[in-house]
Amino acid sequence: MRAAIFQFSPAFGDVAANMARIERAVRSADADLWVLPELATTGYLFADRAECSALAEPADGPSLRALVDLCRERSTRVVIGFAEREGERIYNAAAHLSPEGVLSVYRKVHLFDRERVTFDPGPGPFRVDPLGAHRLGMMICFDWVFPEAARSLALLGADVIAHPANLVLPFCQDAMVTRALENGVFCLTANRVGVERRAGVELAFTGRSQIVDPQGRVLARAPSDAEATLAVDLELELARDKSLTPRNDRLGDRRPECYVERE
Amino acid sequence: MRAAIFQFSPAFGDVAANMARIERAVRSADADLWVLPELATTGYLFADRAECSALAEPADGPSLRALVDLCRERSTRVVIGFAEREGERIYNAAAHLSPEGVLSVYRKVHLFDRERVTFDPGPGPFRVDPLGAHRLGMMICFDWVFPEAARSLALLGADVIAHPANLVLPFCQDAMVTRALENGVFCLTANRVGVERRAGVELAFTGRSQIVDPQGRVLARAPSDAEATLAVDLELELARDKSLTPRNDRLGDRRPECYVERE
Repeated sequence: MRAAIFQFSPAFGDVAANMARIERAVRSADADLWVLPELATTGYLFADRAECSALAEPADGPSLRALVDLCRERSTRVVIGFAEREGERIYNAAAHLSPEGVLSVYRKVHLFDRERVTFDPGPGPFRVDPLGAHRLGMMICFDWVFPEAARSLALLGADVIAHPANLVLPFCQDAMVTRALENGVFCLTANRVGVERRAGVELAFTGRSQIVDPQGRVLARAPSDAEATLAVDLELELARDKSLTPRNDRLGDRRPECYVERE
Repeated sequence: MRAAIFQFSPAFGDVAANMARIERAVRSADADLWVLPELATTGYLFADRAECSALAEPADGPSLRALVDLCRERSTRVVIGFAEREGERIYNAAAHLSPEGVLSVYRKVHLFDRERVTFDPGPGPFRVDPLGAHRLGMMICFDWVFPEAARSLALLGADVIAHPANLVLPFCQDAMVTRALENGVFCLTANRVGVERRAGVELAFTGRSQIVDPQGRVLARAPSDAEATLAVDLELELARDKSLTPRNDRLGDRRPECYVERE
């Protein structure tokens, strides 16, 4: 499977411009799966919940419909972060799109900082989707801090974790190497670049989007400060081999009876 | 609290020589807590279970008794990996020693490769010990692969994770930065150096013992190929602050109702 990431700097509030850039990127290279950043259609730094609500769209809204059309045109899949409105609720969400439509929507479980003001927390639980004979799981940005997120996806059989992000802390790229290795999965972190200054806050995003294989090898990494497209052929079957030694299996060796799961 | 690590190359099977080196190291610098490698008294690569059993000692055996005496002499604590014999069972264990005696013994839960032939798996569960007003948890080497190990210790209130190791894979040192950061704890990995060739197997140990703070900063790191002592003053209270942003707490933000904990 050929997987691609498009790292760019979305223009805040300009959905039409962001969609045009995304569509141009997806038409620029052949891939079976594209992963795009968190909140790729709207930008990140909403002044308040009302502004976020005005820019958010339902999963059957025009942006995702256009991207499903693009999936049909290009015979590809897209995982993209977007602001989702569902009735009175607003989620920081990611959609898994294919030529068949919106296959699933993941609503971010662990909200970061001011997102807690703007968004409702996703209800969970973590789930995975079919990806041909394999499985795809989604998590968003700050979910990386919680090992339970990637672990949940791996226990559900994810071979690939698609990870849209708008990272501002410097730790995640290294941590996702550990996530890939501890779970034996491919991890595709699609981060953004650029700076947003709004509502008295300035955020600089750290780029360095990356594709990591189940042995913790970084197969591709984008620069920290420029738009970039990464594309790599992934042998998904490698994620079915959880061995680390002839006698060790990363999932099978777990000892849940020894673990503490609550404070 | 001043914490120290002694990284060295234990001589296989020569308990007297290894104890002499350990005692010399602990007398060489003042510290409140020393962390020593896994299987520091015996070496690592046992040919078989019988050889391991012959070198293993009970927790009230001569090696740990001598180290408790050393704790009294130096007014310090020692966490050390040792081969523990208890009746018919043999564990890859770590002991937490103080002037008061053997405070606790942790028996390695996740055995690595050939250790499965030599040792019995530890029964768990993970536990923590008082460390003055703070708490200390122990894990051993390959436990690093399983995020549930450090997470369990953090959920039990560990401020410091003492991590004796005999590492042969190249990933752990970076992964322990993630463990420190995701849990907001100090992580002290005491690795060994040198090569063992026994029973047709050759293992090269990777050194790079390290002390990481709750923000993922590497406070000290030893070389990959030489004996070394690290000593750092740790402000343990930093591990009580689990915030990553004004609105995010690394333990409090967990969403167990969203997680999958079994395959």
